[in-house]
Amino acid sequence: MSARAQALFANEAFYQAFQQRDLKAMEQLWALNRPVACIHPGWSALTTRDDVIRSWRGILENPESPAVVCRGAEAFPQGSVVFVLCYESVDSALLVATNVFIEEDGQWKIVHHQAGPCNPPPEGLPEEDEAGPLQ
Amino acid sequence: MSARAQALFANEAFYQAFQQRDLKAMEQLWALNRPVACIHPGWSALTTRDDVIRSWRGILENPESPAVVCRGAEAFPQGSVVFVLCYESVDSALLVATNVFIEEDGQWKIVHHQAGPCNPPPEGLPEEDEAGPLQ
Repeated sequence: MSARAQALFANEAFYQAFQQRDLKAMEQLWALNRPVACIHPGWSALTTRDDVIRSWRGILENPESPAVVCRGAEAFPQGSVVFVLCYESVDSALLVATNVFIEEDGQWKIVHHQAGPCNPPPEGLPEEDEAGPLQ
Repeated sequence: MSARAQALFANEAFYQAFQQRDLKAMEQLWALNRPVACIHPGWSALTTRDDVIRSWRGILENPESPAVVCRGAEAFPQGSVVFVLCYESVDSALLVATNVFIEEDGQWKIVHHQAGPCNPPPEGLPEEDEAGPLQ
């Protein structure tokens, strides 16, 4: 499978973990041996793995966290890295996200996530990624 | 110079071009032979070099575009890529940005920029990057 396809697959796994509030899967998706960072909407940057995982624990364990749907994912291969851009439908709001992936020990892992508001939506945005949720 | 230092240097050049409304410098900073993308605050993703450069032309040529100051830049090397996170003071607002850099023909170029709102600011954010503007 190409790097592009692997990164898109990892991106789907990221949103599946998000949707299913699966903290274990989310933890496993973040690289272990690389510098990682995460910028949630409106937040300042989290720049240690501990802070990133703690933030996801807070989000995934909060019953009031809204559901998220990933739409229109597109991959941009850059040498050893692939960054994926996609849209996130969160309740009635639309966010746009950058997710950066790299291979670590044979598996594609996320090393950075930034999401921020997007209004209006782009033309032709699909309702949901055509690949659909992972089985 | 390390990849980290080169990327931080390119990040400074990016904000210098932004501050000085130097479209030629901005154009030269964007990679020519790689897929590039750009997400301005609130916008949807621009995913072609033509669209990215056109957007910067509109921003840099608009006399009402506010000044920007880069603060607290930090580099995250990832194989052949370095992503830099930093804060942007734009008038009274604070944004947080992801800038992705890669070496192209011996020079470090930007391949992706995303900026979005950040409120409140992180603790200890310096007023301006210690390195100051490039000479």
